[in-house]
Amino acid sequence: MPMTRNDALALDAQDPLAPLRAQFALPEGLIYLDGNSLGVLPRRTAERVQEVVTAEWGVGLIGSWNSAGWMQLAPRVGDKIARLVGAGAGEVVAADSTSVNLFKVLSAALTIARTDAPGRQRIVSERSNFPTDLYIAESLARERGFELVLADADELPQHLDSRCAVLMLTHVNYRTGRMHDMAALTRAAHSAGALTVWDLAHSAGAVAVDLRGADADFAIGCGYKYLNGGPGAPAFVWANPKHAERFWQPLAGWMGHAAPFEFTPGYRPAPGISRYLCGTPAVLSLAALECGVDTVLAAEPYGGLPALRAKSVALTRLFAELVEARCPQLALASPREDDRRGSQVCFAHPDIAYPVVRALIARGVVGDFRAPDILRFGFTPLYLRFVDAFDAALHLQAVLEQEEWRRPEFNQREAVT
Amino acid sequence: MPMTRNDALALDAQDPLAPLRAQFALPEGLIYLDGNSLGVLPRRTAERVQEVVTAEWGVGLIGSWNSAGWMQLAPRVGDKIARLVGAGAGEVVAADSTSVNLFKVLSAALTIARTDAPGRQRIVSERSNFPTDLYIAESLARERGFELVLADADELPQHLDSRCAVLMLTHVNYRTGRMHDMAALTRAAHSAGALTVWDLAHSAGAVAVDLRGADADFAIGCGYKYLNGGPGAPAFVWANPKHAERFWQPLAGWMGHAAPFEFTPGYRPAPGISRYLCGTPAVLSLAALECGVDTVLAAEPYGGLPALRAKSVALTRLFAELVEARCPQLALASPREDDRRGSQVCFAHPDIAYPVVRALIARGVVGDFRAPDILRFGFTPLYLRFVDAFDAALHLQAVLEQEEWRRPEFNQREAVT
Repeated sequence: MPMTRNDALALDAQDPLAPLRAQFALPEGLIYLDGNSLGVLPRRTAERVQEVVTAEWGVGLIGSWNSAGWMQLAPRVGDKIARLVGAGAGEVVAADSTSVNLFKVLSAALTIARTDAPGRQRIVSERSNFPTDLYIAESLARERGFELVLADADELPQHLDSRCAVLMLTHVNYRTGRMHDMAALTRAAHSAGALTVWDLAHSAGAVAVDLRGADADFAIGCGYKYLNGGPGAPAFVWANPKHAERFWQPLAGWMGHAAPFEFTPGYRPAPGISRYLCGTPAVLSLAALECGVDTVLAAEPYGGLPALRAKSVALTRLFAELVEARCPQLALASPREDDRRGSQVCFAHPDIAYPVVRALIARGVVGDFRAPDILRFGFTPLYLRFVDAFDAALHLQAVLEQEEWRRPEFNQREAVT
Repeated sequence: MPMTRNDALALDAQDPLAPLRAQFALPEGLIYLDGNSLGVLPRRTAERVQEVVTAEWGVGLIGSWNSAGWMQLAPRVGDKIARLVGAGAGEVVAADSTSVNLFKVLSAALTIARTDAPGRQRIVSERSNFPTDLYIAESLARERGFELVLADADELPQHLDSRCAVLMLTHVNYRTGRMHDMAALTRAAHSAGALTVWDLAHSAGAVAVDLRGADADFAIGCGYKYLNGGPGAPAFVWANPKHAERFWQPLAGWMGHAAPFEFTPGYRPAPGISRYLCGTPAVLSLAALECGVDTVLAAEPYGGLPALRAKSVALTRLFAELVEARCPQLALASPREDDRRGSQVCFAHPDIAYPVVRALIARGVVGDFRAPDILRFGFTPLYLRFVDAFDAALHLQAVLEQEEWRRPEFNQREAVT
C-alpha cells in the first residue's frame, strides 16, 4: 500500500529525534534538501557571533586571546568534531579550508610513503571524487614526482598494488551519495602497503565514521555542510596519532609551532595534531562552527550518530522510493542499498536536471544541480521531517507532470549551481 | 618648551582626520595602542555580520552564493585593498591566512627563479622577520632544495648576488617598526637578478605602499591589523600581473579553477590573481574584513593614505619624544627617522618589558610585549588622537616611577603575549 502524507506525519510523531529541529532557524515553509552543500543556521549562532564581535573583539580586544580563550578555539572545536568521527581528544583541529587541509595531510602521507616505501609512485583516487581533491592531488603529484591515477569506484581494489603510495578518497561521493566501506578499503590499502587519506566532507555529522576503528591514516572534513558551521566555515584535520609527529607538514605557520609566542626563528613543530595548524585562527568563523557542531552533539542524549544515521537512512529510502514510483523520467543515481548510501539521494536526467532543480526551488524545495545531469537532494536528519521527504517528492512529481521546468527563467544558468 | 596636554588637545582640534574616529566602537577611556596586532571594531561590522548570518545565511541559504554575491566577496574586498597598496583592480584577492598566502607566492617565486635563473639557491630574508614568514620559507626551502639565508637589515644589500633567487621581506618590522625602502630594495634585487616577496602585514592601511611603482613581484598582507578586519580575518595576496599567469601555485583548490562549477577533473587555473584562491571563501570573515577595509577607504576624501601616514608619523614622533624625555630607563628601539619608521614605536628594556606592558594595560593603555625585551606601541591614525599619545606617555612614566610593574600579577606570563 503506497505511503500517504498521514503516514509520513505519523512517522514524525514517533520520531525521537524530532525535538532537535528546534535548534535551527529554518525559514517558514521551506523544505531544505541542501544541507550537504550549506547547513542551515542554528538559532544559537547569531547570538554567539554577535557576542564574539561586540564583547570579545569590541571590548576585550587583543586581551581576548587570553581572556576569551581564542587560542583554545581550534583544538576545542576539533575535540568536539573528534567525537563525531571516531577520533580521540587532542587528535583533531579545526582550521583553514578543506582544500588547504588536504594539501597538508596528502603532503604528509606522500612524505611517509617516500620514506617507508620509496618505490611507490601512485596516488590512487576515484575519477568522480570532488574536483578540489583531485586538483590538490594533481598539484602535489606534480611537485613531488608522483602520478595521480583515477579509477571508477568498483575498480579501486585492483589499483591497490605495489605501485600505490596513497589511496585518497572522499568517503561519500558528492555526486551520487555512494559511500565507501572505509574499514575494508583501509584494510586493503594497508595490505598492499599503501596509506589512506579520507575526505569526510559528506560524512561528518551525517553518517557514523570510525577513523580509529578503521585504522585510517589521515582525514579531513568540511565545516559548512552537515556540521552547520556557516558559509566557508573552517574545515578540520585529523592524523592518526602514530603518524602525527613523524613529520612537519609544509604549511609550517606559527600556530603549528611548539611555542608561537617565543618568536624564535627555526621551526619547531608543536606536538601532535597542533602542527597541522598554520596561520592565525579565524575567530568569528570558528565560533560559528562551534555552534554548528554543538547542534550535532546535541543528538548524543538521543542516541547520537547511530540514531541520526538510522533516521537519515529512513528519510533517503522514503524519498528514493516515492520519487521512483512517481517520477519515471528520472533514474536513481544513488545506491539502493542503505549501507552504501550516504545522507543524500541523487537522480539523473540527461537533459533537464538543471531546470527541474530550479523549478523545485521556486516551489520552496531546495536541492541542487551537479553538472552535467544530477539532481541532488541532501537529507540532514537533525532538522528534516518525514513529511518534508514526502512533500518534496510530490513537488518533484508536479514539476515534471506540469512541465514547469520549461519556463525560460529556470533555464538560465546561475553562476553558482 | 615641552609639550603640554593642552598642546596635544589643540593638535586634535586641528586634525582634519579627527572625524574618522567615529567609525569605531572604542571602549570608553581606553587608549588602544595595539591596532598593529588586532585593529578595533568598526561600528558597522556588528550589524553587517549579523545581516550575513541571519538574512544571507539564515534566510537566503545556499541561494546567497548567487543572490548575495558571496562569490564576488574575495575579489571585491581584494579590489578595495588594492587601492591601499598601489595595486590595480583585479590584482588582489582576500583569502586564507597570511602564512598560507606566503606559501603560495613564495612557491610561485621559487618556481619562476628555478625556470629563469636555475643556478640560484638562496632565499634571503631578515633575521628578525616575523617568525611565521621564516617558518614558511624554511619549509619551502627544504622541500624545494633552496637555502634560507638570514641577515640583519643593514646587511641585506650585500646578499643580493648571483646566488639569491628571492628576497623575502616584511616591509615594516614587527618588533622594531623599522621600515624598508621597498622601491630601492626591489631595484637592488632586480639588478642582482632576484625576485622580491613583500609581507605588508604592518603596512597595509597604515603607510603608503606602492607595489606597482616599486615594480615588486609578489606581496601578501594581513586583514586583522591596520585593516580592522577582526580576529583571524582573511589575509590578501597580490602578484605582479607579469607573473600572475605564469604558474599554478601549489594550493590548487577549486576556487582558483577557471570554472569551479563545471566540476571537471584536471586543474585549469583561473586567469590572473584568481588562481591564488584555494578553498571555499570564509564568508562571515570576509564580510567583517570588508567593513574594516572600508574604514580605511573612508579616509580618501580626507587625503587618503598620505594624510593618514602624515598623522601616523606625527603621532609616533610625539610619543617617542615624550617617552624618551620622561622614561630614561627605556631605550628607543624604533628608527628615529620618520621615513624609516612604520606606524609603531618600540622601546626596549632588558628586564622589565613584560610587567611594564601589563601594568600599562591595567591603567587602560594597551600596547604589547614582544619577546624578549620589547614594549611595542602601535598608532593607528584612523582612531588615535594626539592626546592619546600624550596620556599614554604619562601613564608609562607613572608605571616606571611608581614601580607598578613590581606587582606579582603583572609578572605572571599569559599564554598569548
